[in-house]
Amino acid sequence: MTAIDYFTESHSVEAVNGRMGPATDARLAHVMARLVTHLHAFIKDVELTQEEWANAIGFLTRTGQICDGNRQEYILLSDVLGVSMLVDAINNRRPTGATENTVLGPFHVDGVPEYPMGATITQEGGKETCLFEGTVTDLAGTPLQGVRIDVWSDNEDGFYDVQQPGLQPTHNNRGIFVTGPDGRYWFRGIKPVAYPIPDDGPVGQMLGHLGRHPYRPAHMHFIISRAGFDTIVTHTFVEGDKYLHSDAVFGVKQSLIAPFDPVPEGETKWRSTFDFVMHKGAA
Amino acid sequence: MTAIDYFTESHSVEAVNGRMGPATDARLAHVMARLVTHLHAFIKDVELTQEEWANAIGFLTRTGQICDGNRQEYILLSDVLGVSMLVDAINNRRPTGATENTVLGPFHVDGVPEYPMGATITQEGGKETCLFEGTVTDLAGTPLQGVRIDVWSDNEDGFYDVQQPGLQPTHNNRGIFVTGPDGRYWFRGIKPVAYPIPDDGPVGQMLGHLGRHPYRPAHMHFIISRAGFDTIVTHTFVEGDKYLHSDAVFGVKQSLIAPFDPVPEGETKWRSTFDFVMHKGAA
Repeated sequence: MTAIDYFTESHSVEAVNGRMGPATDARLAHVMARLVTHLHAFIKDVELTQEEWANAIGFLTRTGQICDGNRQEYILLSDVLGVSMLVDAINNRRPTGATENTVLGPFHVDGVPEYPMGATITQEGGKETCLFEGTVTDLAGTPLQGVRIDVWSDNEDGFYDVQQPGLQPTHNNRGIFVTGPDGRYWFRGIKPVAYPIPDDGPVGQMLGHLGRHPYRPAHMHFIISRAGFDTIVTHTFVEGDKYLHSDAVFGVKQSLIAPFDPVPEGETKWRSTFDFVMHKGAA
Repeated sequence: MTAIDYFTESHSVEAVNGRMGPATDARLAHVMARLVTHLHAFIKDVELTQEEWANAIGFLTRTGQICDGNRQEYILLSDVLGVSMLVDAINNRRPTGATENTVLGPFHVDGVPEYPMGATITQEGGKETCLFEGTVTDLAGTPLQGVRIDVWSDNEDGFYDVQQPGLQPTHNNRGIFVTGPDGRYWFRGIKPVAYPIPDDGPVGQMLGHLGRHPYRPAHMHFIISRAGFDTIVTHTFVEGDKYLHSDAVFGVKQSLIAPFDPVPEGETKWRSTFDFVMHKGAA
Protein backbone atom coordinates (compact mmCIF):
# COMPACT_ATOMS: atom_id res chain seq x y z
CA MET A 1 0.00 0.00 0.00
CA THR A 2 2.22 2.77 -1.32
CA ALA A 3 1.60 6.24 -2.62
CA ILE A 4 1.23 5.04 -6.20
CA ASP A 5 -1.68 2.78 -5.26
CA TYR A 6 -3.87 5.78 -5.94
CA PHE A 7 -3.91 7.50 -9.31
CA THR A 8 -2.43 11.00 -9.46
CA GLU A 9 -1.63 13.17 -12.45
CA SER A 10 2.10 12.91 -11.84
CA HIS A 11 2.11 9.14 -11.18
CA SER A 12 -0.54 8.16 -13.70
CA VAL A 13 1.70 5.79 -15.65
CA GLU A 14 2.96 3.96 -12.58
CA ALA A 15 -0.59 3.64 -11.23
CA VAL A 16 -1.83 1.95 -14.39
CA ASN A 17 1.19 -0.20 -15.19
CA GLY A 18 1.53 -1.29 -11.56
CA ARG A 19 -1.81 -3.03 -11.87
CA MET A 20 -0.68 -5.71 -14.34
CA GLY A 21 -0.66 -9.23 -12.95
CA PRO A 22 2.59 -11.19 -12.53
CA ALA A 23 1.49 -13.92 -14.93
CA THR A 24 1.02 -11.51 -17.84
CA ASP A 25 2.81 -12.62 -21.02
CA ALA A 26 6.16 -10.81 -20.99
CA ARG A 27 5.87 -9.31 -24.47
CA LEU A 28 2.27 -8.18 -23.90
CA ALA A 29 3.26 -6.63 -20.57
CA HIS A 30 6.08 -4.73 -22.25
CA VAL A 31 3.97 -3.48 -25.16
CA MET A 32 1.10 -2.41 -22.91
CA ALA A 33 3.37 -0.69 -20.39
CA ARG A 34 5.02 1.30 -23.17
CA LEU A 35 1.64 2.05 -24.76
CA VAL A 36 0.36 3.51 -21.48
CA THR A 37 3.60 5.46 -21.07
CA HIS A 38 3.41 7.07 -24.51
CA LEU A 39 -0.38 7.55 -24.41
CA HIS A 40 -0.26 9.40 -21.08
CA ALA A 41 2.74 11.43 -22.29
CA PHE A 42 0.70 12.55 -25.29
CA ILE A 43 -2.29 13.58 -23.15
CA LYS A 44 -0.08 15.53 -20.74
CA ASP A 45 1.86 17.07 -23.63
CA VAL A 46 -1.23 18.61 -25.24
CA GLU A 47 -3.27 18.92 -22.02
CA LEU A 48 -6.19 17.27 -23.77
CA THR A 49 -9.52 18.90 -22.88
CA GLN A 50 -12.66 17.00 -21.85
CA GLU A 51 -14.32 18.09 -25.09
CA GLU A 52 -11.40 16.84 -27.18
CA TRP A 53 -11.48 13.55 -25.27
CA ALA A 54 -15.21 13.21 -26.02
CA ASN A 55 -14.57 13.97 -29.70
CA ALA A 56 -11.84 11.32 -29.77
CA ILE A 57 -14.15 8.73 -28.19
CA GLY A 58 -16.78 9.53 -30.80
CA PHE A 59 -14.27 9.34 -33.66
CA LEU A 60 -12.85 5.97 -32.54
CA THR A 61 -16.36 4.59 -32.09
CA ARG A 62 -17.53 5.68 -35.54
CA THR A 63 -14.32 4.34 -37.10
CA GLY A 64 -15.11 0.90 -35.68
CA GLN A 65 -18.78 1.00 -36.53
CA ILE A 66 -18.27 1.70 -40.23
CA CYS A 67 -16.10 -1.43 -40.60
CA ASP A 68 -17.66 -4.48 -42.22
CA GLY A 69 -16.56 -7.44 -44.32
CA ASN A 70 -15.58 -5.14 -47.18
CA ARG A 71 -14.44 -2.00 -45.41
CA GLN A 72 -11.66 -1.67 -42.82
CA GLU A 73 -11.61 1.94 -41.66
CA TYR A 74 -9.06 1.22 -38.89
CA ILE A 75 -6.49 0.05 -41.45
CA LEU A 76 -7.26 3.24 -43.37
CA LEU A 77 -6.65 5.27 -40.19
CA SER A 78 -3.38 3.41 -39.63
CA ASP A 79 -2.43 4.12 -43.25
CA VAL A 80 -3.07 7.87 -43.25
CA LEU A 81 -1.21 8.33 -39.93
CA GLY A 82 1.87 6.62 -41.37
CA VAL A 83 1.50 3.74 -38.91
CA SER A 84 1.14 1.02 -41.54
CA MET A 85 4.27 2.19 -43.36
CA LEU A 86 6.20 2.50 -40.10
CA VAL A 87 5.33 -1.04 -38.99
CA ASP A 88 6.23 -2.28 -42.45
CA ALA A 89 9.57 -0.44 -42.36
CA ILE A 90 10.49 -1.76 -38.91
CA ASN A 91 9.72 -5.34 -39.88
CA ASN A 92 11.35 -5.31 -43.33
CA ARG A 93 14.77 -3.73 -42.97
CA ARG A 94 16.92 -4.95 -45.86
CA PRO A 95 20.45 -4.45 -47.13
CA THR A 96 21.02 -1.68 -49.65
CA GLY A 97 20.25 -2.94 -53.13
CA ALA A 98 17.42 -5.25 -52.12
CA THR A 99 13.98 -4.13 -53.32
CA GLU A 100 12.13 -2.20 -50.63
CA ASN A 101 8.67 -3.00 -49.26
CA THR A 102 5.65 -0.79 -49.13
CA VAL A 103 2.09 -1.24 -47.80
CA LEU A 104 0.06 -4.27 -48.83
CA GLY A 105 -3.17 -2.27 -49.04
CA PRO A 106 -6.69 -3.67 -48.67
CA PHE A 107 -7.22 -4.92 -52.24
CA HIS A 108 -5.09 -8.07 -52.44
CA VAL A 109 -7.10 -11.26 -52.98
CA ASP A 110 -6.18 -14.93 -52.81
CA GLY A 111 -7.04 -17.57 -55.39
CA VAL A 112 -5.93 -15.63 -58.43
CA PRO A 113 -5.00 -17.84 -61.44
CA GLU A 114 -1.40 -18.41 -62.54
CA TYR A 115 -0.76 -17.38 -66.13
CA PRO A 116 2.06 -18.10 -68.59
CA MET A 117 4.54 -15.26 -69.08
CA GLY A 118 3.25 -12.69 -71.51
CA ALA A 119 -0.41 -13.12 -70.62
CA THR A 120 -2.76 -10.15 -70.39
CA ILE A 121 -4.29 -9.56 -66.94
CA THR A 122 -6.72 -6.86 -68.10
CA GLN A 123 -10.01 -8.47 -69.00
CA GLU A 124 -11.85 -5.35 -70.13
CA GLY A 125 -9.54 -3.97 -72.80
CA GLY A 126 -8.24 -0.49 -72.06
CA LYS A 127 -6.51 2.18 -74.07
CA GLU A 128 -3.34 2.65 -72.02
CA THR A 129 -2.02 -0.87 -72.46
CA CYS A 130 1.33 -1.57 -70.87
CA LEU A 131 3.98 -4.28 -70.90
CA PHE A 132 5.45 -4.90 -67.46
CA GLU A 133 8.80 -6.66 -67.56
CA GLY A 134 12.04 -7.19 -65.72
CA THR A 135 14.27 -9.69 -63.97
CA VAL A 136 14.29 -11.07 -60.45
CA THR A 137 17.77 -11.65 -59.03
CA ASP A 138 19.48 -12.13 -55.71
CA LEU A 139 21.77 -9.46 -54.28
CA ALA A 140 24.68 -10.86 -56.29
CA GLY A 141 22.73 -10.37 -59.53
CA THR A 142 22.06 -14.07 -60.14
CA PRO A 143 18.66 -14.59 -61.82
CA LEU A 144 16.22 -16.50 -59.65
CA GLN A 145 14.06 -19.31 -60.98
CA GLY A 146 10.71 -20.29 -59.46
CA VAL A 147 9.91 -16.87 -58.09
CA ARG A 148 6.16 -16.35 -57.60
CA ILE A 149 5.03 -12.91 -58.81
CA ASP A 150 1.56 -11.89 -57.65
CA VAL A 151 0.38 -8.64 -59.29
CA TRP A 152 -2.72 -6.47 -59.10
CA SER A 153 -3.75 -2.94 -60.05
CA ASP A 154 -6.78 -0.73 -60.49
CA ASN A 155 -8.44 -0.27 -63.87
CA GLU A 156 -8.44 2.89 -66.00
CA ASP A 157 -11.29 4.28 -63.87
CA GLY A 158 -9.28 3.87 -60.65
CA PHE A 159 -11.20 0.84 -59.34
CA TYR A 160 -9.95 -2.58 -58.29
CA ASP A 161 -12.18 -5.42 -59.42
CA VAL A 162 -13.36 -6.05 -55.84
CA GLN A 163 -14.72 -2.50 -55.73
CA GLN A 164 -17.06 -3.27 -58.63
CA PRO A 165 -18.89 -6.46 -57.66
CA GLY A 166 -21.07 -7.63 -60.52
CA LEU A 167 -19.63 -5.03 -62.85
CA GLN A 168 -16.17 -6.40 -63.47
CA PRO A 169 -15.06 -9.85 -64.53
CA THR A 170 -13.44 -11.82 -61.73
CA HIS A 171 -9.71 -11.20 -61.31
CA ASN A 172 -9.61 -8.26 -63.66
CA ASN A 173 -6.10 -6.74 -63.55
CA ARG A 174 -4.76 -9.54 -61.37
CA GLY A 175 -2.46 -12.47 -62.07
CA ILE A 176 0.28 -14.76 -60.83
CA PHE A 177 3.44 -15.53 -62.81
CA VAL A 178 6.40 -17.79 -62.00
CA THR A 179 9.90 -17.12 -63.32
CA GLY A 180 11.92 -19.59 -65.36
CA PRO A 181 15.73 -20.14 -65.28
CA ASP A 182 16.40 -16.63 -66.68
CA GLY A 183 14.57 -14.95 -63.76
CA ARG A 184 12.60 -12.86 -66.27
CA TYR A 185 8.98 -11.82 -66.01
CA TRP A 186 6.68 -10.10 -68.49
CA PHE A 187 2.97 -9.59 -68.66
CA ARG A 188 0.49 -7.18 -70.18
CA GLY A 189 -1.90 -4.93 -68.26
CA ILE A 190 -2.82 -1.26 -68.26
CA LYS A 191 -0.91 1.72 -67.01
CA PRO A 192 -2.41 2.23 -63.51
CA VAL A 193 -4.09 5.51 -62.55
CA ALA A 194 -4.20 7.53 -59.33
CA TYR A 195 -7.31 7.03 -57.16
CA PRO A 196 -8.67 8.25 -53.80
CA ILE A 197 -8.83 5.99 -50.76
CA PRO A 198 -12.44 5.69 -49.45
CA ASP A 199 -13.07 9.15 -48.03
CA ASP A 200 -16.78 9.11 -47.15
CA GLY A 201 -16.17 7.94 -43.56
CA PRO A 202 -14.50 9.23 -40.37
CA VAL A 203 -10.99 8.96 -41.83
CA GLY A 204 -11.99 10.96 -44.90
CA GLN A 205 -13.51 13.63 -42.63
CA MET A 206 -10.27 13.72 -40.64
CA LEU A 207 -8.22 14.19 -43.81
CA GLY A 208 -10.55 17.06 -44.72
CA HIS A 209 -9.99 18.78 -41.37
CA LEU A 210 -6.22 18.37 -41.86
CA GLY A 211 -6.25 19.85 -45.34
CA ARG A 212 -5.08 16.59 -46.92
CA HIS A 213 -6.35 15.01 -50.14
CA PRO A 214 -7.21 11.28 -50.23
CA TYR A 215 -5.31 10.33 -53.41
CA ARG A 216 -2.72 7.64 -53.99
CA PRO A 217 -0.34 7.99 -56.92
CA ALA A 218 -0.76 5.41 -59.68
CA HIS A 219 0.94 2.08 -58.87
CA MET A 220 1.13 -1.62 -59.73
CA HIS A 221 1.14 -4.00 -56.74
CA PHE A 222 3.63 -6.86 -56.50
CA ILE A 223 4.23 -9.68 -54.04
CA ILE A 224 7.51 -11.37 -54.94
CA SER A 225 8.14 -14.62 -53.07
CA ARG A 226 10.50 -17.59 -53.19
CA ALA A 227 11.49 -20.07 -50.49
CA GLY A 228 14.63 -18.97 -48.66
CA PHE A 229 14.18 -15.29 -49.48
CA ASP A 230 12.40 -12.39 -47.77
CA THR A 231 9.01 -11.91 -49.38
CA ILE A 232 8.80 -8.51 -51.05
CA VAL A 233 5.42 -6.80 -50.67
CA THR A 234 5.65 -3.68 -52.76
CA HIS A 235 4.42 -1.46 -55.59
CA THR A 236 6.02 0.14 -58.58
CA PHE A 237 4.90 3.76 -58.92
CA VAL A 238 4.25 5.49 -62.21
CA GLU A 239 7.07 7.96 -62.80
CA GLY A 240 5.79 11.53 -63.05
CA ASP A 241 2.48 10.95 -61.25
CA LYS A 242 1.24 14.18 -59.69
CA TYR A 243 0.68 12.54 -56.29
CA LEU A 244 4.13 10.93 -55.92
CA HIS A 245 5.03 13.51 -53.26
CA SER A 246 1.72 13.40 -51.42
CA ASP A 247 0.56 9.76 -51.33
CA ALA A 248 -2.30 9.71 -48.78
CA VAL A 249 -0.81 6.58 -47.16
CA PHE A 250 2.91 7.51 -47.47
CA GLY A 251 3.70 4.43 -49.56
CA VAL A 252 6.14 6.01 -52.05
CA LYS A 253 9.87 5.30 -51.89
CA GLN A 254 12.32 6.77 -54.36
CA SER A 255 13.60 3.31 -55.31
CA LEU A 256 10.11 2.12 -56.26
CA ILE A 257 9.41 4.74 -58.92
CA ALA A 258 9.40 2.95 -62.27
CA PRO A 259 9.71 4.25 -65.81
CA PHE A 260 6.63 4.02 -67.99
CA ASP A 261 7.91 4.56 -71.50
CA PRO A 262 5.74 5.06 -74.57
CA VAL A 263 6.33 2.37 -77.20
CA PRO A 264 5.73 3.87 -80.66
CA GLU A 265 4.07 1.33 -82.93
CA GLY A 266 4.37 -1.27 -80.18
CA GLU A 267 1.99 -4.07 -79.31
CA THR A 268 1.27 -2.16 -76.09
CA LYS A 269 1.20 1.62 -75.76
CA TRP A 270 3.54 1.65 -72.73
CA ARG A 271 6.37 -0.39 -71.32
CA SER A 272 7.52 -0.42 -67.68
CA THR A 273 10.78 -2.17 -66.89
CA PHE A 274 11.58 -2.89 -63.25
CA ASP A 275 14.02 -5.39 -61.78
CA PHE A 276 13.47 -6.94 -58.36
CA VAL A 277 16.32 -7.91 -56.03
CA MET A 278 15.60 -10.47 -53.32
CA HIS A 279 17.42 -10.77 -50.01
CA LYS A 280 18.21 -14.23 -48.66
CA GLY A 281 16.17 -14.20 -45.46
CA ALA A 282 16.39 -16.15 -42.25
CA ALA A 283 13.26 -18.12 -43.08
CA MET B 1 10.87 18.29 -53.11
CA THR B 2 13.07 17.47 -50.13
CA ALA B 3 14.24 14.22 -48.56
CA ILE B 4 11.31 14.14 -46.15
CA ASP B 5 8.80 14.14 -48.98
CA TYR B 6 9.16 10.38 -48.93
CA PHE B 7 8.44 8.35 -45.82
CA THR B 8 11.40 6.71 -44.12
CA GLU B 9 11.63 4.96 -40.77
CA SER B 10 13.83 7.69 -39.32
CA HIS B 11 11.76 10.60 -40.68
CA SER B 12 8.32 9.05 -40.28
CA VAL B 13 6.98 11.79 -38.02
CA GLU B 14 8.15 14.63 -40.25
CA ALA B 15 6.75 12.89 -43.34
CA VAL B 16 3.26 12.61 -41.81
CA ASN B 17 3.11 15.96 -40.02
CA GLY B 18 4.55 17.78 -43.01
CA ARG B 19 1.44 16.85 -44.95
CA MET B 20 -1.00 18.99 -42.95
CA GLY B 21 -2.49 21.89 -44.85
CA PRO B 22 -1.74 25.51 -43.90
CA ALA B 23 -5.40 26.27 -43.13
CA THR B 24 -5.67 23.54 -40.47
CA ASP B 25 -7.11 24.79 -37.18
CA ALA B 26 -4.10 25.62 -34.99
CA ARG B 27 -5.17 23.56 -31.98
CA LEU B 28 -6.11 20.56 -34.14
CA ALA B 29 -2.78 20.80 -35.97
CA HIS B 30 -0.92 20.84 -32.65
CA VAL B 31 -2.84 17.92 -31.14
CA MET B 32 -2.51 15.80 -34.28
CA ALA B 33 1.20 16.56 -34.71
CA ARG B 34 1.88 15.53 -31.12
CA LEU B 35 -0.34 12.46 -31.49
CA VAL B 36 1.65 11.30 -34.51
CA THR B 37 4.91 12.04 -32.67
CA HIS B 38 3.98 9.97 -29.61
CA LEU B 39 2.28 7.22 -31.62
CA HIS B 40 5.31 6.69 -33.86
CA ALA B 41 7.60 6.85 -30.81
CA PHE B 42 5.58 4.03 -29.22
CA ILE B 43 5.77 1.85 -32.33
CA LYS B 44 9.52 2.38 -32.66
CA ASP B 45 10.03 1.84 -28.93
CA VAL B 46 8.45 -1.63 -28.94
CA GLU B 47 9.26 -2.44 -32.59
CA LEU B 48 5.67 -3.49 -33.11
CA THR B 49 5.38 -6.63 -35.26
CA GLN B 50 3.01 -7.04 -38.20
CA GLU B 51 1.06 -9.62 -36.20
CA GLU B 52 0.73 -7.29 -33.21
CA TRP B 53 -0.40 -4.51 -35.55
CA ALA B 54 -3.06 -6.81 -37.02
CA ASN B 55 -4.20 -7.77 -33.52
CA ALA B 56 -4.46 -4.10 -32.58
CA ILE B 57 -6.53 -3.34 -35.69
CA GLY B 58 -8.87 -6.20 -34.80
CA PHE B 59 -9.15 -5.07 -31.17
CA LEU B 60 -9.92 -1.45 -32.06
CA THR B 61 -12.49 -2.58 -34.63
CA ARG B 62 -14.29 -4.91 -32.19
CA THR B 63 -14.24 -2.22 -29.51
CA GLY B 64 -16.11 0.12 -31.85
CA GLN B 65 -18.50 -2.51 -33.12
CA ILE B 66 -19.78 -3.52 -29.66
CA CYS B 67 -20.80 0.10 -28.91
CA ASP B 68 -24.48 0.96 -29.11
CA GLY B 69 -26.90 3.36 -27.45
CA ASN B 70 -26.43 1.66 -24.09
CA ARG B 71 -22.84 0.50 -24.24
CA GLN B 72 -19.73 2.63 -24.77
CA GLU B 73 -16.75 0.28 -24.89
CA TYR B 74 -14.33 3.05 -25.92
CA ILE B 75 -15.04 4.99 -22.73
CA LEU B 76 -14.45 1.73 -20.87
CA LEU B 77 -11.11 1.35 -22.67
CA SER B 78 -10.20 4.93 -21.79
CA ASP B 79 -11.18 4.21 -18.17
CA VAL B 80 -9.12 1.05 -17.69
CA LEU B 81 -6.03 2.64 -19.29
CA GLY B 82 -6.21 5.54 -16.83
CA VAL B 83 -6.94 7.98 -19.68
CA SER B 84 -10.30 9.16 -18.34
CA MET B 85 -8.81 9.90 -14.91
CA LEU B 86 -5.81 11.63 -16.46
CA VAL B 87 -7.95 13.93 -18.62
CA ASP B 88 -10.14 14.64 -15.60
CA ALA B 89 -7.08 15.45 -13.47
CA ILE B 90 -5.57 17.79 -16.06
CA ASN B 91 -8.82 19.70 -16.49
CA ASN B 92 -9.75 19.94 -12.81
CA ARG B 93 -6.66 21.04 -10.90
CA ARG B 94 -7.83 22.68 -7.66
CA PRO B 95 -6.26 24.27 -4.61
CA THR B 96 -5.53 22.04 -1.64
CA GLY B 97 -8.64 21.70 0.49
CA ALA B 98 -11.12 21.80 -2.38
CA THR B 99 -12.92 18.50 -3.01
CA GLU B 100 -11.24 16.50 -5.77
CA ASN B 101 -12.91 15.20 -8.92
CA THR B 102 -13.07 11.66 -10.16
CA VAL B 103 -14.59 9.99 -13.25
CA LEU B 104 -18.21 10.67 -14.19
CA GLY B 105 -18.80 7.09 -15.29
CA PRO B 106 -21.41 5.95 -17.81
CA PHE B 107 -24.43 5.72 -15.48
CA HIS B 108 -25.41 9.34 -14.90
CA VAL B 109 -28.84 10.27 -16.25
CA ASP B 110 -30.60 13.59 -16.68
CA GLY B 111 -34.15 14.40 -15.63
CA VAL B 112 -33.94 12.99 -12.12
CA PRO B 113 -36.47 14.54 -9.65
CA GLU B 114 -35.45 17.01 -6.96
CA TYR B 115 -36.38 15.86 -3.48
CA PRO B 116 -36.61 17.65 -0.12
CA MET B 117 -33.69 17.04 2.23
CA GLY B 118 -34.06 13.77 4.10
CA ALA B 119 -35.87 11.95 1.29
CA THR B 120 -35.12 8.31 0.51
CA ILE B 121 -33.72 7.68 -2.98
CA THR B 122 -33.93 3.89 -2.76
CA GLN B 123 -37.24 2.74 -4.16
CA GLU B 124 -36.85 -0.98 -3.53
CA GLY B 125 -36.12 -1.12 0.20
CA GLY B 126 -32.79 -2.70 1.06
CA LYS B 127 -31.21 -4.00 4.23
CA GLU B 128 -28.07 -1.83 4.36
CA THR B 129 -29.86 1.50 4.65
CA CYS B 130 -27.61 4.54 4.99
CA LEU B 131 -27.94 8.22 5.86
CA PHE B 132 -25.68 10.40 3.71
CA GLU B 133 -25.03 13.81 5.20
CA GLY B 134 -22.60 16.69 5.35
CA THR B 135 -22.07 20.35 4.57
CA VAL B 136 -21.04 22.17 1.40
CA THR B 137 -18.75 25.15 2.00
CA ASP B 138 -16.34 27.34 0.11
CA LEU B 139 -12.60 27.16 0.78
CA ALA B 140 -12.98 29.62 3.69
CA GLY B 141 -15.48 27.27 5.37
CA THR B 142 -18.54 29.42 4.70
CA PRO B 143 -21.66 27.27 4.11
CA LEU B 144 -23.06 27.58 0.59
CA GLN B 145 -26.74 27.95 -0.11
CA GLY B 146 -28.41 26.88 -3.35
CA VAL B 147 -25.91 24.14 -4.17
CA ARG B 148 -27.34 21.46 -6.45
CA ILE B 149 -26.40 17.97 -5.32
CA ASP B 150 -27.01 15.24 -7.93
CA VAL B 151 -26.47 11.75 -6.49
CA TRP B 152 -26.65 8.18 -7.84
CA SER B 153 -25.46 4.74 -6.83
CA ASP B 154 -25.92 1.08 -7.61
CA ASN B 155 -28.36 -1.10 -5.65
CA GLU B 156 -27.44 -3.90 -3.25
CA ASP B 157 -26.98 -6.28 -6.19
CA GLY B 158 -24.42 -3.94 -7.81
CA PHE B 159 -26.70 -2.66 -10.58
CA TYR B 160 -27.66 0.88 -11.53
CA ASP B 161 -31.34 1.28 -12.44
CA VAL B 162 -30.44 1.78 -16.12
CA GLN B 163 -28.83 -1.66 -16.15
CA GLN B 164 -32.13 -3.28 -15.25
CA PRO B 165 -34.67 -1.86 -17.70
CA GLY B 166 -38.12 -3.09 -16.81
CA LEU B 167 -36.94 -4.60 -13.57
CA GLN B 168 -36.24 -1.50 -11.51
CA PRO B 169 -38.45 1.52 -10.83
CA THR B 170 -37.35 4.65 -12.66
CA HIS B 171 -34.70 6.68 -10.87
CA ASN B 172 -34.02 4.07 -8.23
CA ASN B 173 -31.07 5.24 -6.11
CA ARG B 174 -30.96 8.63 -7.78
CA GLY B 175 -31.97 12.08 -6.60
CA ILE B 176 -31.27 15.81 -6.66
CA PHE B 177 -31.11 17.96 -3.52
CA VAL B 178 -30.51 21.70 -3.07
CA THR B 179 -28.87 23.14 0.03
CA GLY B 180 -30.44 25.80 2.22
CA PRO B 181 -28.68 28.65 4.07
CA ASP B 182 -26.82 26.22 6.36
CA GLY B 183 -25.16 24.46 3.39
CA ARG B 184 -26.23 21.11 4.83
CA TYR B 185 -27.42 18.06 2.90
CA TRP B 186 -28.88 14.78 4.05
CA PHE B 187 -30.70 11.96 2.30
CA ARG B 188 -31.31 8.26 2.73
CA GLY B 189 -30.14 5.51 0.40
CA ILE B 190 -28.31 2.23 0.71
CA LYS B 191 -24.65 1.56 1.39
CA PRO B 192 -23.27 1.02 -2.16
CA VAL B 193 -21.57 -2.25 -3.11
CA ALA B 194 -18.59 -3.08 -5.33
CA TYR B 195 -19.44 -4.20 -8.88
CA PRO B 196 -17.61 -5.22 -12.06
CA ILE B 197 -17.51 -2.96 -15.12
CA PRO B 198 -18.97 -4.76 -18.17
CA ASP B 199 -16.34 -7.40 -18.90
CA ASP B 200 -17.91 -9.55 -21.61
CA GLY B 201 -16.39 -7.49 -24.46
CA PRO B 202 -12.95 -6.64 -25.87
CA VAL B 203 -11.98 -4.51 -22.85
CA GLY B 204 -12.88 -7.32 -20.43
CA GLN B 205 -10.79 -9.73 -22.52
CA MET B 206 -7.90 -7.30 -22.36
CA LEU B 207 -8.16 -7.02 -18.59
CA GLY B 208 -8.09 -10.82 -18.44
CA HIS B 209 -4.89 -10.98 -20.50
CA LEU B 210 -3.34 -8.37 -18.17
CA GLY B 211 -4.27 -10.27 -15.01
CA ARG B 212 -6.58 -7.47 -13.86
CA HIS B 213 -10.03 -7.86 -12.26
CA PRO B 214 -12.94 -5.69 -13.49
CA TYR B 215 -14.22 -4.49 -10.10
CA ARG B 216 -14.85 -1.00 -8.85
CA PRO B 217 -14.88 -0.37 -5.09
CA ALA B 218 -18.26 0.63 -3.66
CA HIS B 219 -19.04 4.32 -4.15
CA MET B 220 -21.77 6.97 -4.18
CA HIS B 221 -21.70 9.40 -7.13
CA PHE B 222 -22.04 13.14 -6.62
CA ILE B 223 -22.20 16.14 -8.92
CA ILE B 224 -21.99 19.29 -6.80
CA SER B 225 -22.73 22.50 -8.70
CA ARG B 226 -23.41 26.16 -8.00
CA ALA B 227 -23.00 29.23 -10.19
CA GLY B 228 -19.61 30.85 -9.74
CA PHE B 229 -17.90 27.66 -8.50
CA ASP B 230 -16.11 24.79 -10.22
CA THR B 231 -18.53 21.91 -10.62
CA ILE B 232 -17.35 18.91 -8.62
CA VAL B 233 -17.90 15.56 -10.37
CA THR B 234 -16.88 12.94 -7.86
CA HIS B 235 -17.64 9.88 -5.74
CA THR B 236 -17.36 9.06 -2.08
CA PHE B 237 -15.81 5.63 -1.61
CA VAL B 238 -16.81 3.20 1.11
CA GLU B 239 -14.00 3.07 3.65
CA GLY B 240 -12.56 -0.43 3.98
CA ASP B 241 -13.77 -1.72 0.59
CA LYS B 242 -11.52 -4.53 -0.63
CA TYR B 243 -11.06 -2.92 -4.06
CA LEU B 244 -10.01 0.56 -2.86
CA HIS B 245 -6.45 -0.17 -3.96
CA SER B 246 -7.34 -1.79 -7.26
CA ASP B 247 -10.26 0.16 -8.77
CA ALA B 248 -10.48 -1.07 -12.37
CA VAL B 249 -10.81 2.55 -13.59
CA PHE B 250 -8.34 4.18 -11.12
CA GLY B 251 -11.02 6.49 -9.68
CA VAL B 252 -10.01 6.33 -6.00
CA LYS B 253 -8.34 9.28 -4.29
CA GLN B 254 -7.38 9.22 -0.63
CA SER B 255 -9.42 12.36 0.05
CA LEU B 256 -12.60 10.77 -1.32
CA ILE B 257 -12.73 7.80 1.04
CA ALA B 258 -15.69 8.36 3.37
CA PRO B 259 -16.58 6.79 6.70
CA PHE B 260 -19.57 4.48 6.75
CA ASP B 261 -20.41 4.09 10.44
CA PRO B 262 -22.91 1.65 11.87
CA VAL B 263 -25.73 3.40 13.75
CA PRO B 264 -26.96 1.11 16.57
CA GLU B 265 -30.73 1.41 16.97
CA GLY B 266 -30.76 4.14 14.28
CA GLU B 267 -33.40 4.86 11.68
CA THR B 268 -30.84 3.74 9.09
CA LYS B 269 -28.25 0.99 9.60
CA TRP B 270 -25.32 3.15 8.41
CA ARG B 271 -24.33 6.79 8.37
CA SER B 272 -21.79 8.40 6.00
CA THR B 273 -20.70 11.95 6.73
CA PHE B 274 -18.79 13.80 4.03
CA ASP B 275 -18.26 17.54 3.59
CA PHE B 276 -17.71 19.08 0.19
CA VAL B 277 -15.53 22.14 -0.39
CA MET B 278 -16.10 24.18 -3.54
CA HIS B 279 -13.53 26.30 -5.34
CA LYS B 280 -14.59 29.63 -6.78
CA GLY B 281 -13.98 29.06 -10.46
CA ALA B 282 -13.34 31.34 -13.37
CA ALA B 283 -16.76 30.65 -14.82
